[in-house]
Amino acid sequence: MTSSPYSPTSEPDRGHPRGLFVAFEGGDGAGKSTQARLLAGSLLAAGHEVLLTREPGGTPIGEKLRSLVLEHGQGEVDARTEALIFAAARAAHVAQTVKPALDRGSIVITDRYIGSSIVYQGIARGLGAEPVRDLNVWATEGLWPDLTVLLDVDETEGRARRAADDAVEDRLESESDDFHRNVRTAFLDLAEERPDAYLVLDGRRPLDELAERILAAVTRSLQARL
Amino acid sequence: MTSSPYSPTSEPDRGHPRGLFVAFEGGDGAGKSTQARLLAGSLLAAGHEVLLTREPGGTPIGEKLRSLVLEHGQGEVDARTEALIFAAARAAHVAQTVKPALDRGSIVITDRYIGSSIVYQGIARGLGAEPVRDLNVWATEGLWPDLTVLLDVDETEGRARRAADDAVEDRLESESDDFHRNVRTAFLDLAEERPDAYLVLDGRRPLDELAERILAAVTRSLQARL
Repeated sequence: MTSSPYSPTSEPDRGHPRGLFVAFEGGDGAGKSTQARLLAGSLLAAGHEVLLTREPGGTPIGEKLRSLVLEHGQGEVDARTEALIFAAARAAHVAQTVKPALDRGSIVITDRYIGSSIVYQGIARGLGAEPVRDLNVWATEGLWPDLTVLLDVDETEGRARRAADDAVEDRLESESDDFHRNVRTAFLDLAEERPDAYLVLDGRRPLDELAERILAAVTRSLQARL
Repeated sequence: MTSSPYSPTSEPDRGHPRGLFVAFEGGDGAGKSTQARLLAGSLLAAGHEVLLTREPGGTPIGEKLRSLVLEHGQGEVDARTEALIFAAARAAHVAQTVKPALDRGSIVITDRYIGSSIVYQGIARGLGAEPVRDLNVWATEGLWPDLTVLLDVDETEGRARRAADDAVEDRLESESDDFHRNVRTAFLDLAEERPDAYLVLDGRRPLDELAERILAAVTRSLQARL
C-alpha cells in the first residue's frame, strides 16, 4: 500500500516534546480572541512563558498574505487560491513562530488554525475537507494542537455579536446566515472526530465561566505532559 | 486501492477541448521570455488569438504574490511557504486567465508553469518533486500544457547571460552555480519522463533557428487538434 506524500498518518502527531500548543476555533463572533487573551493572561500570571498569536498572520509575510486575501473584493479570489494563500501564511507561521516557541518550552495559543481552513475553504466553500486537510498537514509538517478549544455559537448569536462590534465586516464575515450555519456544523463535526483533542464550549455562557473551564482544561493538559 | 485527493491520475489530463496551452520552461537566462514573445508574434501574425502570460504573476493577485516572494530577503521565506505562495499565484492564474482564454479557443503561452515549481521548490530546494507536483495538480485542477518547450543552457552560459542583463538579480537568480546545475538536470529529467509533451532545445542555438523550430512544433500541435 502506497500513501500520498500528503497523507497524514491515521493518527496525527499531536503534541510537542516541550511546549504546549493550544488553538481556538469557532465562527466569527464566538469570542475566540477574548478567551485567547484571557487564557494567555492567566498562564502568564501563573509564571508560564506564553506566545499569543493568530491566523492568518503571525509573521511579517503572513500579515501581508492575510491582508491580501481579506481585503480583496468578493469574487476576485477564488476558493482554491484563498486556501493556498492561507496555507502559505500558516506554513510561515508554524516554521517561524510556533515551532521555535514550542522548542523553547512555551505555551503557544493561536486564534484559529487548521480547523478554520478545513471548515471555511474545505466545507463551506466546497473544496472538500480532505484535500484542504492534506494541504495543511503538508504546510505545517503535521503539527497539530495538543488541545483545540471550540467556542460554539449559533449563527444568530454570531451575527448579533459581529454587529455589536461596530467594525466593518471583512469578506468572510459578511457571508450569509446559511454560510455561518454550515460553518458551525462543520466545526462541531471536526470536534466529534477527535473528542480527546477538543474542548467544546457553549459560547453564550458568561465570559468568566468560559475562561475558568478553558484554564482548567489547559492545566490538565500541562499536567499530563509531566 | 484508495488514492489521495491530491494524486494526479497516472495519465494526466493534458490538452484542452478548444485552445492550445504552451509552456516555456528552463533556467534563468535560457531565453524563455524572448522565445515566448517571438512565438506569440508569429502566431498573431498568422491570425491566431494568442494570450502571452507569465508565472508567478499573470493576475492582479498573482503579481502581488510574485513581488511578495521574490522581493523578500533570503532566509525570510522558507521553501514550503514559497512553494505554497507560488501555487496560490498559479491557481489564480489558471482560474482567472488561462482557462477562460482556452475556453475562448485562444493559444495560451506561459513563461514558466508547474515544471518550474517541481524543479525549484521540489528538487533544488529539497521539498521533493512528488508533493510539489501533487500540490500544483490540485491548484490547477490538473491542467497540463499541451506542449512544454524546454530551453536548455548549462549553468555557465546562464550566468553569463544573466550578468549581461545588467538587471539586479532576484532571490532565485542569485543562487550558486551548484543550484543552477541541479535545476538544469531536474528540468531535463522532467522532459525525459514525458517526451511526447516536451520539445527540448539547446538554448545556445541562434534565436531565429530556435524560433523556427518552436513555431513548427506548435503548428504540428495545432494540426493534431483538428
